Amino acid sequence: MYNLVELIAIKRDGGELSPPQVKHLINAFVQGDMADYQMSAFLMAAFLRGMSDIESVALTEAMLNSGQVLDLSDIPGIKVDKHSTGGVGDKVSIALVPIVAACGVPVPMISGRGLGHTGGTLDKLEAIPGFNVNLDPSDFARIISDVGGCMIGQTEEVAPADKRIYALRDVTATVESVPLIVASILSKKLAEGIDALVLDVKVGKGAFMKDLAQARTLASALVRVGTRANKRVVAVLTRMDAPLGRAIGNALETREAIDVLFGHAPADLTECTHALCAEMLMLGGKAQTTHEALEKIRGVIADGSAADVMERMIAAQGGDPAVVRKPEMMAQAPHIVAVPAPKAGAIVGIDAMEMGLSAVALGAGRTRADQKVDPAVGIVLDASLGDTVDKGAPLAHIHARSSASAKSVFGRITGAFEIGPQTQPRKSLVIERIES
Amino acid sequence: MYNLVELIAIKRDGGELSPPQVKHLINAFVQGDMADYQMSAFLMAAFLRGMSDIESVALTEAMLNSGQVLDLSDIPGIKVDKHSTGGVGDKVSIALVPIVAACGVPVPMISGRGLGHTGGTLDKLEAIPGFNVNLDPSDFARIISDVGGCMIGQTEEVAPADKRIYALRDVTATVESVPLIVASILSKKLAEGIDALVLDVKVGKGAFMKDLAQARTLASALVRVGTRANKRVVAVLTRMDAPLGRAIGNALETREAIDVLFGHAPADLTECTHALCAEMLMLGGKAQTTHEALEKIRGVIADGSAADVMERMIAAQGGDPAVVRKPEMMAQAPHIVAVPAPKAGAIVGIDAMEMGLSAVALGAGRTRADQKVDPAVGIVLDASLGDTVDKGAPLAHIHARSSASAKSVFGRITGAFEIGPQTQPRKSLVIERIES
Repeated sequence: MYNLVELIAIKRDGGELSPPQVKHLINAFVQGDMADYQMSAFLMAAFLRGMSDIESVALTEAMLNSGQVLDLSDIPGIKVDKHSTGGVGDKVSIALVPIVAACGVPVPMISGRGLGHTGGTLDKLEAIPGFNVNLDPSDFARIISDVGGCMIGQTEEVAPADKRIYALRDVTATVESVPLIVASILSKKLAEGIDALVLDVKVGKGAFMKDLAQARTLASALVRVGTRANKRVVAVLTRMDAPLGRAIGNALETREAIDVLFGHAPADLTECTHALCAEMLMLGGKAQTTHEALEKIRGVIADGSAADVMERMIAAQGGDPAVVRKPEMMAQAPHIVAVPAPKAGAIVGIDAMEMGLSAVALGAGRTRADQKVDPAVGIVLDASLGDTVDKGAPLAHIHARSSASAKSVFGRITGAFEIGPQTQPRKSLVIERIES
Repeated sequence: MYNLVELIAIKRDGGELSPPQVKHLINAFVQGDMADYQMSAFLMAAFLRGMSDIESVALTEAMLNSGQVLDLSDIPGIKVDKHSTGGVGDKVSIALVPIVAACGVPVPMISGRGLGHTGGTLDKLEAIPGFNVNLDPSDFARIISDVGGCMIGQTEEVAPADKRIYALRDVTATVESVPLIVASILSKKLAEGIDALVLDVKVGKGAFMKDLAQARTLASALVRVGTRANKRVVAVLTRMDAPLGRAIGNALETREAIDVLFGHAPADLTECTHALCAEMLMLGGKAQTTHEALEKIRGVIADGSAADVMERMIAAQGGDPAVVRKPEMMAQAPHIVAVPAPKAGAIVGIDAMEMGLSAVALGAGRTRADQKVDPAVGIVLDASLGDTVDKGAPLAHIHARSSASAKSVFGRITGAFEIGPQTQPRKSLVIERIES
């Protein structure tokens, strides 16, 4: 049919592959007819030559169709999910699913685990005693139908082409390619059987995309390609210079996410969560305007129905729903050490990358995919951007497995706070939204 | 020391790798620390971003030093070899080695086998009964010392990095890259222990390089990189639109090469062989000018000493030297079929690629590296460029294993001759020479 070397050569020379050609390439790879070394040559060519939207859609669909595609068409309503490109302290999903579900939009969410400086939603959920993220598709569908939302991990059967291609990209310097990132994200999300998707594209020192131009490029490509693949897609660009909220670490973050459900969470986390929930409500047909959506969101928080959905979802997934009212049930670290301000002043920066890596060093995350995480450990910020502190006042508390472990990151956490002479105006967390 | 992914990323981003970085990469690949898929990503990046001369020299030397490097320093004189980028009917080496050796320049030649539309010197030599191309380095050195020249195949020990990299390039659309071609050619040739090298860069429809600009780029890169690697290097660009000489096929070509030693070969083959021999004599210090070199060459042909060296080399390599005076000893095809001119006119084109592929179809070459070749079969042209023919006069004779085999290429061979209304002036085969 097609000669693989010729297909690689077309991309190498900057040409455009037809959708059947892209499909042939991915199928050949999945079936073992295209070797890893051929795929990596193709990936480097795609990295350097780029891919058109038509190619990206074809790549996304071929990767999507390389595995199981869930069918949630029996569940009434517009199914909407959210995906974040990842940041430090990003526990938004855990509050967002019950809020959006309480507003009547079904949320099928398949999440990942933490790797590198960012945490993973699955690790955070597993801080809840008994919570099971490994459900089969029929239980997943049933819980979405009964409760309104369900949060599970990716099975081996979902987008296997993406798994193998991602592993290759990681070791061949082909990760930072917009069309390849787009296909990787969308192939997994579209396999969930969703109708619409909200993308939280994080920008800043603690994010994958360090500058706004890069993030905009990625966000618009995600929106364009997702739209061409017949999904309604909106992207929101949000700031990720400082950690999101005050908690970093699995149980600590889940606890803070639960705070969002009761309206007690830090302002930045609340803003970010509500903004993303509002987009989902509009896509899900439950609000016409942002204003109307935010009203509904505040309603399900005020009347306790968001917290109720959280309890029912936890119970449905084998966890102890009492955690919602008693988050101290989750694992707690035996050593809690204050990090005092080395001088008085205003907090003008909190390096999210340094905080994320410190949390990993404490045991909250992974440097290799096969490591286990410690649910209890992490960091809780006492001072946020814009606060003023006296010398010696606590900047943060380290939650550690041992005092030696706490000591090992003490200097790094102290150094992550930038203390200036005067406060700077707080910036809105949401930078802009992009839709098709 | 160096992170392989970072090294790939440097090349991907258009940066220049330092010689130690290039060396690290090749050593890691040879030692199994760099996977095939990482090398192929690097090769695609190098293909698209190019490599500087400094990188090319480092790549050549790293590949060269990945295996055995012959030491011929005990043999007096300047050792000179010739390499051709390959063409149809290119049997030059078989005449060139004895001519140059007879003029007093030692020639250590390591050649390859045919693949695709071009034949290989080793396959042609093996048409000589008993001729052994698999000699160990000590025999190789001894025969060069005794006879003046020796022609063998590449051992497994020579430039193993090149073998593995070439195999990858072939299946990842990264063959046609000047710096990669340069490193591949030079690493193998420099491993022979030579002091100087003449490169025959073929240009035209039957050659790897289809146009003059490409060929010039390759030729100058070869000369620059070879010179930086401390060898004296000259490149000659020669035309390869029509087949070289009249014979295509192993025994047929060896026989025609022997004709060169007696001064009876077709004009184009004689011109090409003498021009390359002349460059070798000048590099080897046996002539100051082309004129002086050509005089010497004509001398060793006229006095029979070139043919004598051929006989002695064949005998030293286990072959029957009687073949030089009785070339009909070599295998002959049982079916010889004339290809008549479909109309009268002048021969204005003979498609070398079509002729090469027809010879392969007859069994003279390979489409896969593990195939055997038939020494007897091939094509002999009766009409050359510039000749005029009557309708029905023979354009060529097909030498085939069976009449069915002859029939299968009959139309293709007929079609390879372009017959026009009037002859065009014959062009010189040598286009230009490039030296550092």
